[in-house]
Amino acid sequence: MNELKEEIALNVRFSDTDAMGVIWHGNYLKFFEDAREAFGNKFGLTYLDVYNCGYFTPIVKSEIDFKSPIYYGEKVTVIAKYIPVPAAKIIFEYRVMNLSTNKVCAIGKTIQVFINEKTRILELNKPDFYLAWELKNEIKF
Amino acid sequence: MNELKEEIALNVRFSDTDAMGVIWHGNYLKFFEDAREAFGNKFGLTYLDVYNCGYFTPIVKSEIDFKSPIYYGEKVTVIAKYIPVPAAKIIFEYRVMNLSTNKVCAIGKTIQVFINEKTRILELNKPDFYLAWELKNEIKF
Amino acid sequence: MNELKEEIALNVRFSDTDAMGVIWHGNYLKFFEDAREAFGNKFGLTYLDVYNCGYFTPIVKSEIDFKSPIYYGEKVTVIAKYIPVPAAKIIFEYRVMNLSTNKVCAIGKTIQVFINEKTRILELNKPDFYLAWELKNEIKF
Amino acid sequence: MNELKEEIALNVRFSDTDAMGVIWHGNYLKFFEDAREAFGNKFGLTYLDVYNCGYFTPIVKSEIDFKSPIYYGEKVTVIAKYIPVPAAKIIFEYRVMNLSTNKVCAIGKTIQVFINEKTRILELNKPDFYLAWELKNEIKF
Repeated sequence: MNELKEEIALNVRFSDTDAMGVIWHGNYLKFFEDAREAFGNKFGLTYLDVYNCGYFTPIVKSEIDFKSPIYYGEKVTVIAKYIPVPAAKIIFEYRVMNLSTNKVCAIGKTIQVFINEKTRILELNKPDFYLAWELKNEIKF
Repeated sequence: MNELKEEIALNVRFSDTDAMGVIWHGNYLKFFEDAREAFGNKFGLTYLDVYNCGYFTPIVKSEIDFKSPIYYGEKVTVIAKYIPVPAAKIIFEYRVMNLSTNKVCAIGKTIQVFINEKTRILELNKPDFYLAWELKNEIKF
Repeated sequence: MNELKEEIALNVRFSDTDAMGVIWHGNYLKFFEDAREAFGNKFGLTYLDVYNCGYFTPIVKSEIDFKSPIYYGEKVTVIAKYIPVPAAKIIFEYRVMNLSTNKVCAIGKTIQVFINEKTRILELNKPDFYLAWELKNEIKF
Repeated sequence: MNELKEEIALNVRFSDTDAMGVIWHGNYLKFFEDAREAFGNKFGLTYLDVYNCGYFTPIVKSEIDFKSPIYYGEKVTVIAKYIPVPAAKIIFEYRVMNLSTNKVCAIGKTIQVFINEKTRILELNKPDFYLAWELKNEIKF
């Protein structure tokens, strides 16, 4: 089984900075979402892919450990790594790397669940489309 | 005829600042929206009121003149003034005042149109609910 | 010893919603910051208070458990509760309550550390101004 | 003289959408800033370049005409075109193009001025570094 992950160069916006002169901490959840969607583009699991199968996958948990600040103009990448689990959840771990300083800026984790788009009810079991996706990508746990 | 307007105390968030130490210029459109919605709450014309009548009112034009910066911690108010027009448009003018310095921070303007929520088609004439709203509020132009 | 906390009515902005029709999950960190600053205003521990004593207090860890979504127009409050600890850290726990549905929307936690504003070096011990603040507020752990 | 401009592919974030299912209008100022900074990278006029010469260049005026909405997942580009003027101002015009629909999404304009980084005083004349920049890029008006 392959480890599934995707790495993106981060688009650090000036509007993402704050008055301490660094990227405002809350914006890292945007960067995680950027990396997660890039992962989705690579492996066929974007928000729109999931929506077209009849589901939303809202975030139910997020964790971030901030290790070192990012200053405007620095080169940064984000890696989203897919963590296989038996439960009806999608788990990603993230690593934000500052290429200008070669430091880890942050690590993080998100957990998503499956919600039926029409009924807005939580799915306790993995939806069929997701089982097929796991099979296709040889996911094991 | 009364002049219709509403004034709000601004909630200046730390996350709204940028690395120049002031409120990032793009955030003023949030402040205008805050004031517009406060106006809507006062006079019965919020996004949800309009949506419940079957319409969206997207912004088609915005203008901002930035006069003086806002620093984090300063007391600021925003006034949204309704500008009556014969066309099927909703026009507001805004004034952002810095109470800490007694300076005008910014003035601005937005124009909204009526879009049918179902068909997403532009309404060339004022919808009935809006004509009723104008009548009730004694709007003249 | 009193439990130190502050509760605020949340300013849910339309710009805080996303295409799922709910408040975008990343914005909860803004709400936590709003509540933390309101706490700071009440007890004398805002970002500016701390900065004027020569320190930044950046977030080094954040956790959020999302329990139920917030729709635009719903009434929401956020409680920030101060958690006393012996280490040179500031810890808050948060509870986001939806008053329209009487449901808990989210719970969360943040950890901040003390950074010298000039040297940008991490303080391993509580700064004097903070020890004085703890004493004044009868903090025990 | 060449027309100076830069075009970028837009990074449309899910967090940039709103409850109408489209990109929230206020976010276009982020896109303009992205394009302006990409222009700056190409021609040596980024915020950091300017700052290193001792100046800020805050926005004093912005205008946006919204022509057609952007839905999440659509391919979008932004062009920032430099408009030469004799006054001590930096003017850009913007065009946001939806490549998925081949429609113009928005056009816009920003005006920036020169503020001395230390004194925070407005420069009535073009600073020397900017005159040199104009000369190097063969700017005429």
